[in-house]
Order: sequence, then C-alpha cells, then structure tokens
Amino acid sequence: MNERTCAIIVVGNEILSGKVRDGNAWFAARELRRLGVALNRIAVVPDERQTIIDEVRQCAKSFDFVITSGGVGPTHDDITIEAVAAAFGRKVAVDPELRRIVAQYFTGGLNAAGLKMAEAPEGAVLIAAGDLRFPTIQLENVYILPGIPQIFETKLKALGPRFATDPYYLRTIYTNAGEGVIAEHLNATLRQFPELLLGSYPKIGDDSYRVKLTLESKDRGYLERAFNHLIGLLPAAVVVKTE
Amino acid sequence: MNERTCAIIVVGNEILSGKVRDGNAWFAARELRRLGVALNRIAVVPDERQTIIDEVRQCAKSFDFVITSGGVGPTHDDITIEAVAAAFGRKVAVDPELRRIVAQYFTGGLNAAGLKMAEAPEGAVLIAAGDLRFPTIQLENVYILPGIPQIFETKLKALGPRFATDPYYLRTIYTNAGEGVIAEHLNATLRQFPELLLGSYPKIGDDSYRVKLTLESKDRGYLERAFNHLIGLLPAAVVVKTE
Repeated sequence: MNERTCAIIVVGNEILSGKVRDGNAWFAARELRRLGVALNRIAVVPDERQTIIDEVRQCAKSFDFVITSGGVGPTHDDITIEAVAAAFGRKVAVDPELRRIVAQYFTGGLNAAGLKMAEAPEGAVLIAAGDLRFPTIQLENVYILPGIPQIFETKLKALGPRFATDPYYLRTIYTNAGEGVIAEHLNATLRQFPELLLGSYPKIGDDSYRVKLTLESKDRGYLERAFNHLIGLLPAAVVVKTE
Repeated sequence: MNERTCAIIVVGNEILSGKVRDGNAWFAARELRRLGVALNRIAVVPDERQTIIDEVRQCAKSFDFVITSGGVGPTHDDITIEAVAAAFGRKVAVDPELRRIVAQYFTGGLNAAGLKMAEAPEGAVLIAAGDLRFPTIQLENVYILPGIPQIFETKLKALGPRFATDPYYLRTIYTNAGEGVIAEHLNATLRQFPELLLGSYPKIGDDSYRVKLTLESKDRGYLERAFNHLIGLLPAAVVVKTE
C-alpha cells in the first residue's frame, strides 16, 4: 500500500477568534485525498511561538510530512518560519536567493519588513512553486505555506506530484432511512469486508435523502464486492440513489 | 479579566478525507468569541479511539473546557463517548434517562443501535439542550456534541450562558497598502499598546482593499486609544475605511 501520512497545521488567531473562516485545510483535505495521501490530523493553533513549536515537533515525528498554513509574512505576528526552525533546533537567517526575489518588490531598498520576508530556517530547501515567483520553503519533512488562500492553493498544487501515491476509490449510497435502521447492515458489511472504509453521514434539512453512506478502498474490486454486499442487505425501498 | 479558555476537538474521517467541510468549528469560533471565551485550539482527528483519548486528555488538562463535535450516534464509527470516558478512566453504561428518551423513537423496541444511543460515560451530567429532546452529555470539563450542524449549533447556543464571560471589543481598518508598507506602523503601535490584539490580513482579488487590520481589546478605552494612535501613523491616503 505504501500510503503516506500527513498533518496540516493552520497557524492563525484570526481563525480561532472567528474573524476568518479557514478554507486551506478544506482545500488541502480534498487535494491530498485525490493524491492518495492520508491526512491524519488538522490542528489550528494560535500565533504563539511555543505552541507552534510543540505542534510541529509532534506532527513531524508522527507523520510522513507536515504542511503549515499561515503566519508567514512581514508583520509582527508572522512567526511560523522561526517556530518551524526552532522545532528542529535551527536558527533563521536571510537567504540570498529569497533576498534577491524580495528585493524586486522593494524598489527603494529593503526595509525591516522586506528582510523578514527573505528569512528561512538554516538548512531549508527552496522549492519552485508553479507560476509564483516566491518559492515554497521546506525544512526536513515540513512544508511552510502562506495563509492567503490563492497562494496556498497554487503552492500545494505545485507540490502535488511529490506527495502523490495510490488513490482511493469511492462509492456512495444515499438512503431515506435513519441511521438506527441501517446500522446493523453496515456492521454486517464491515464484518465481511473489514478493510473497507465506511462512512455514514446523516443530513437534516435536505428532502432528497436522510443518510449518505460512503464506501472506500484502494482496491477497486474489493470496493465493488463490498458495495454489492451492502446494497444486497439494504431494503430496496431505502436506497434513493448510488454513485 | 478572568477569561476562560477552550479547545474544540472535531472527530471525523469525513473531514480529514475531504468528503465533508466542517462548519462546526467555524460556528463555534464566532459563538465563543461573542461569549468572551478564548478558543485556543481546534483539532480535527480521525475516528480512532486512542487518538481521541490522547487529544481529549491533553486538551482537558490544558484548557478550562473542551467541546467535541461528531462521533456520537448508533453506527460502528461513533466512538467519541467511549473515548471521552476512557480519557478520564471511566466506562460507558446505558443511562436510564437517555434510554427513556431514545425509546420514544423505537416503537418496535430498542435494537442494538438504539441502546448505543442511550449510553453515557459513568459520572456524566446530562444538560438540557434548548428545544432538543436529546440532552448534551458533559463529563468533567468536556461537552460532547454531535457532528450534525443544526444539532451542534442548537446545543452550543443552549450551553452559551454557562460559558459567557467578558467580551472583546473590535475595531477594523481597511487599507489599500501592502503589508510591507504598514508593518512598521503596526510594530510602533504594539510598542505603545502591548496589550492590544492586532491582526493583519492581506486580501487578493478584492478591489476594495488590500489589507484588513483588526484591533481588539476587552478594555474599550484602551482599544480606542490604540486605534487613534495607529490611524495617526498611517498615511491618510492608505486608509480606505474603518469600522
């Protein structure tokens, strides 16, 4: 199987205080799924140095790689790069290549804010980020992405090929019965197909169905057999549609 | 100040695999802010018993209270109640009051799924949840809420009065300058007003402004003085509007 595992760390008081709705983790969850990567954790943490360090250290140890979102930029609360560096016992320093890129935006010469944008952890790798001039900074197994959604998405897409492994296959069953009625059939299917990933999602306020069931496997044949098994158990009148 | 701190734990493979976009943490972030509670952490974790136990244990120790979302219900992957119980070294058992409520929905008698819905951790407290018949289960400082958005929201609103403390006051400045230009003024303002919560959020693809600045404090007078200080520093042509 050789499935790679991943965590996303979203850095930002603005998310925790409800001022901004994070969309980057949602975008990344779908993108990583498509690439066959198992996203095992999303953590939203405040702009606090030690909290970021602890989370990065824990995730970098527990998963194959880590993506951070936010906290990079020229302002006082942009401490992600420094915190990621510290998580690996590194310092930050102005990187000559980043300095060259940033200088293009400061025609009057680099101020303190510009110099901060040119900093990277010692030992970091710079990765070309698609059409963007500004590369993605990688330190060990951590990829440091900015919080601005358009840039986050462009950078993540450019990183995609290096993350891709084997994808999941998905079948979906929409039913008009409640979970209480179908739970026994789900359990029976799982006893027969223990490797199946089976999800059950009740919906309120949608007349077209009551519970959506998702079946997933990386083995397409196994998935089809499990799908047919469950369809055979469910009362026909209960199944609204399948995908 | 006496500000209470909180963490939200969202349980659900469906979020991590990108099949469903979580809206409960986003709803809770705004609601908690309004109540004057400091949300310090959001963690999205898979439907894995030990992972939930570890996260609940850590958050319950680190923050004043914890809200969980999802993983309650009658199906095989609903393990949040059992995991929260285990985090405090408790077992789950059928609760007589929950059993009475659940039985109203199973006119033919309770099946295994129904009995599972009637389970609670030993020593848990049942809290009336507004108009809903099904109460919220509280164990120690952990409140166990379901993932279905409408029910999550109703339950959280009903819990609001017990969480409320003193609220934050907010002022906003929209500027048409980039962060590189205004960073020095933000830093100068923070030196003068170190208690100010200051956020800086660049926006792309919106013609009306480039960076939104948020200033917050629980002290309204302090906030106004900091706001006026920053407005005095920013070039007048840069300020698009204020709120």
